[in-house]
Amino acid sequence: MADKKLSGAGLRGQSAGETALCTVGKTGSGLTYRGYDIKELAEKVSFEEVAYLLAKGELPTQSQLDEYRKRLKSLRVLPQEVKDVLERIPKTAHPMDVMRTGCSMLGNLETETSFDQADDHIERMLATFPGIVLYWYRFTHDGVRIDTDSEEDSIGAHFLRLLHDKAPSQLHADVMNTSLILYAEHEFNASTFTARVCASTLSDIHSCVTGAIGSLRGPLHGGANEAAMELIENMKDADDAEKTLMGMLERKEKIMGFGHAIYREFDPRNDIIKAWSKKLSEEVGDSRLYDVSVRCEEVMWREKKLFPNADFFHASAYNYMGIPTKLFTPIFVMSRVTGWTAHVKEQRANNRIIRPSADYTGPEARPVPAIGDR
Amino acid sequence: MADKKLSGAGLRGQSAGETALCTVGKTGSGLTYRGYDIKELAEKVSFEEVAYLLAKGELPTQSQLDEYRKRLKSLRVLPQEVKDVLERIPKTAHPMDVMRTGCSMLGNLETETSFDQADDHIERMLATFPGIVLYWYRFTHDGVRIDTDSEEDSIGAHFLRLLHDKAPSQLHADVMNTSLILYAEHEFNASTFTARVCASTLSDIHSCVTGAIGSLRGPLHGGANEAAMELIENMKDADDAEKTLMGMLERKEKIMGFGHAIYREFDPRNDIIKAWSKKLSEEVGDSRLYDVSVRCEEVMWREKKLFPNADFFHASAYNYMGIPTKLFTPIFVMSRVTGWTAHVKEQRANNRIIRPSADYTGPEARPVPAIGDR
Repeated sequence: MADKKLSGAGLRGQSAGETALCTVGKTGSGLTYRGYDIKELAEKVSFEEVAYLLAKGELPTQSQLDEYRKRLKSLRVLPQEVKDVLERIPKTAHPMDVMRTGCSMLGNLETETSFDQADDHIERMLATFPGIVLYWYRFTHDGVRIDTDSEEDSIGAHFLRLLHDKAPSQLHADVMNTSLILYAEHEFNASTFTARVCASTLSDIHSCVTGAIGSLRGPLHGGANEAAMELIENMKDADDAEKTLMGMLERKEKIMGFGHAIYREFDPRNDIIKAWSKKLSEEVGDSRLYDVSVRCEEVMWREKKLFPNADFFHASAYNYMGIPTKLFTPIFVMSRVTGWTAHVKEQRANNRIIRPSADYTGPEARPVPAIGDR
Repeated sequence: MADKKLSGAGLRGQSAGETALCTVGKTGSGLTYRGYDIKELAEKVSFEEVAYLLAKGELPTQSQLDEYRKRLKSLRVLPQEVKDVLERIPKTAHPMDVMRTGCSMLGNLETETSFDQADDHIERMLATFPGIVLYWYRFTHDGVRIDTDSEEDSIGAHFLRLLHDKAPSQLHADVMNTSLILYAEHEFNASTFTARVCASTLSDIHSCVTGAIGSLRGPLHGGANEAAMELIENMKDADDAEKTLMGMLERKEKIMGFGHAIYREFDPRNDIIKAWSKKLSEEVGDSRLYDVSVRCEEVMWREKKLFPNADFFHASAYNYMGIPTKLFTPIFVMSRVTGWTAHVKEQRANNRIIRPSADYTGPEARPVPAIGDR
């Protein structure tokens, strides 16, 4: 049934559908959400405005934004059953498995029974995801049952508040805001495509997001910022970074956080998060992680013409804010859920089930041997 | 970045990769697993042999099969934490959401930390899936905490035993065996493709299967046997079926269980399950459901040249065995997990991340307006 052989493995460079949500590597600095350049969005708006833009199609007016923030804030309390489930997940579990399970459990309790409820469920997920991962994290790591409600207005500040048990500084709230904007949407990446394949069967929105979380978990996808942290955390200074990296290159070891499946010259999100990482290093008064990251960038460009992607300077930025490495990818989920769910709505609005074919490479037709003859 | 525009929506007829597992609509009767025709498999082997074939590449010898059955039988007991989670899912939940959550929870407790553990996790899922859905079902519907272990040798008989609290007849065990064989594998269908996209990020096997369950849940995919049951259950006899169907066709209503995305002339699985449905109707001594199903088949062919797919006669067959309609699609999961996981292993063995592009249909590049100007 395969009428056409696709040139690249992994469907690379092949169109698998249409989207009005995002361009990657096409116009402006290379990344736009509904026509708005990522650099301008990161400078001028809040993550909640981006979430609104992706869900509804346009940026909100002031009163729409006020209403939206209020609604999101009112939806943060977890059902007791979700907390019961989270308490049964061991401390050693992968936090992405925790999010996948928390989202799936939420879908049992608050099932999407009609597609016109989609926006309500999207807002609920956006509001509860910080609480889902942090209720589990604080329970298993600190032995406390936290209140997943907070007075913080933004999702980024709310996350930091639940993590650290105190209101974040304005700088930290701003960095989280920018970070969530940068990760919100990225066209047909693997997790988003997972959500669209699921949506194409007309399944419910929790199934789509649960599946997407599972794909984002993969080390070739969402796990890169954690891998970048593991790379830089033991580098003593810039010279040590140079030495370590040159050794790794010589041994042809994989270095995470550099290059990109789509971008060829640079990742437009890098400059933005890099600038915040610098500011954080100045605030903390310890430039080691920033300095080693800059040297890594220089070495990788000089030696391999590879540029840092969005994940690389996220590692130092998150670390400066006291975020444990294992929570890096869950933050990605809190942000990308806006993109995933916008794609789910788009797929539903013009749907055909996604069902490709395959080239067969297996055995020729053969008779079934009796069990004694095998 | 989209170099080629694909002709069909939903990637239909487009190759998205290679597989040695299955042909659909190509050779023999139209469906082969690793070169063996589905008709011959359904006649001559057990589901456990098919599961082994898909996982390991060849049909087992007698001693391999004995060992395999013994291992599967030893893996049926659920962790207490999974039972705790299942007890917190309401009776009104969608059973596919229950399976999705149960599988995801299992992944927290028994995480695949290295791909060489894949076969162990596959066997564990195969062994526990009947228990996962039925522990929840019997707890919420009958108020009992069942033992998810049983003396039954086969997965099909084990499922019926847990459901009905007694050993199934040989006929029922045989029908379940055939049914599980028919549903085991079907190339790049939407749920399998979901599993492969997830696997392509190098995520863990529970993420892949959890995502696939979410896609199979969709009414365009796994839900068709339930929809077929809803269609036939109120038909009084063959003439009533004819009348009902003609009315639906006149009103252009969607009729589930007929036609197929890939097969054009017939579904090779239909004759097989149809014959079992007939046998069951004779055993029960009530041919109503079988008769109305046959008439539906005749009417749909006469009026629309549409043939019943695998799902249609499964509805009456399952119903004759006293299986509640809401458990039809979970049985599909218990079977298809063999195909999904074989595809996961295949994807991993020759991987490139599945990351297609999209055709952009959104707004042109535009400046971000100040909030007062929106």
